[in-house]
Amino acid sequence: MYNVQVYVTYKDSVLDPQGQAVQGAIQRLGFEGISQMRIGKFFEMQVTGTDQATVIEKVEAICDRLLANPNMEQYRYDVQLVEDAK
Amino acid sequence: MYNVQVYVTYKDSVLDPQGQAVQGAIQRLGFEGISQMRIGKFFEMQVTGTDQATVIEKVEAICDRLLANPNMEQYRYDVQLVEDAK
Repeated sequence: MYNVQVYVTYKDSVLDPQGQAVQGAIQRLGFEGISQMRIGKFFEMQVTGTDQATVIEKVEAICDRLLANPNMEQYRYDVQLVEDAK
Repeated sequence: MYNVQVYVTYKDSVLDPQGQAVQGAIQRLGFEGISQMRIGKFFEMQVTGTDQATVIEKVEAICDRLLANPNMEQYRYDVQLVEDAK
């Protein structure tokens, strides 16, 4: 069993109005020194697989086909082995 | 300058219907072995600060006051120092 986290964000070339809106709200709250705010989606899941390579292959296929819009979004992921309960 | 990532997810006690919906869609695409899918928001930003402790204090205040709903959501964050361009 593997713990997987997927991070989906807009491609750097794509404007992120939501990120700019949140950055503006933060500044209006009086916080200074916040810049380059970008917002994305974050997926946590558990994935079964015989080995890490198989799990990564499955995760990439799921991202390409469902979790990320290839036209506007990019994704990265973390995969950690979870010790099965003995 | 520090790179900060904030991950906001529902508290474990809160039902995540969106996560279950995506998990169902993944299974209908024919992928097996996916469980415990939970979805959240992901914020990337740059934060100026004299030291890591100051930045962490600022990030926690921003999360408590804006990015996370304390009733239903929990958050965690990563803070990395970015080498300023010489």
